[in-house]
Amino acid sequence: MKGKKTDLGSADCAIARSLDLIGDWWSLLIVRDAFQGKERFGEFQTGLGLAKNILSTRLKKLVSEGIFKMLPESEGSSRSRYVLTPKGERLCVLLAALWQWGEESCFRPGELKRTLVDVNSRKPLARLELRSQDGRRVGPRGFTLAKR
Amino acid sequence: MKGKKTDLGSADCAIARSLDLIGDWWSLLIVRDAFQGKERFGEFQTGLGLAKNILSTRLKKLVSEGIFKMLPESEGSSRSRYVLTPKGERLCVLLAALWQWGEESCFRPGELKRTLVDVNSRKPLARLELRSQDGRRVGPRGFTLAKR
Repeated sequence: MKGKKTDLGSADCAIARSLDLIGDWWSLLIVRDAFQGKERFGEFQTGLGLAKNILSTRLKKLVSEGIFKMLPESEGSSRSRYVLTPKGERLCVLLAALWQWGEESCFRPGELKRTLVDVNSRKPLARLELRSQDGRRVGPRGFTLAKR
Repeated sequence: MKGKKTDLGSADCAIARSLDLIGDWWSLLIVRDAFQGKERFGEFQTGLGLAKNILSTRLKKLVSEGIFKMLPESEGSSRSRYVLTPKGERLCVLLAALWQWGEESCFRPGELKRTLVDVNSRKPLARLELRSQDGRRVGPRGFTLAKR
């Protein structure tokens, strides 16, 4: 991989290619808000305080990458809703990893007032951990890349 | 949170605050390379094909945020090694989440030649999944934010 951002999309590295799609931090905040139930342009705009043209560009890219799909607000409506596709919904793990890292690493004790919970039990989610296929915990130096 | 990037660092959202630190995609690629054993300025530069001044700025920020620490290359050397701190090492989960999402969502079948493996067994890591504390799988619509 060379130093140009445009090369990331064809890199032989899944991290680089992911970052090419969602490495723009606004995009992940839009996806975060979609998980919280937002669907309409105005809802995203109000929540993020983002200029219309910037939000519009980001949403177009996310639709073209297959992370959101556009649906009419109601039958025959010219307004659109932006709904996560299965590819977009799979970003829930990445968002949870960002949340949990931030929770542990970027706040003073007691400063963060909210946490990720299971909607059914209302109890905090388990911490995401690297594991081998037989369930052993894998530490930060316990993994590497290998040929398939 | 308003629309200015500088507001992210004080947002009451762990995702926003994480992105404030590592939402610049070069930073995550530097951390990725550190997990693969790179420590020296020149090693990062060659691997990423990045201009010296850009790499230097990113490394300084990562050191000031406590993600890397600087150590001398050898006793009395004026050259430095950049070594992940525990805070930096905890990013392994985020990198694995990026890898696994990209692997599933951004490549054609058979296109990606490498995968994340456990260094001991050389078998692929288990897929990261959201789970409740009693071990049930939690789907992409199965979590929310709640007060602690």
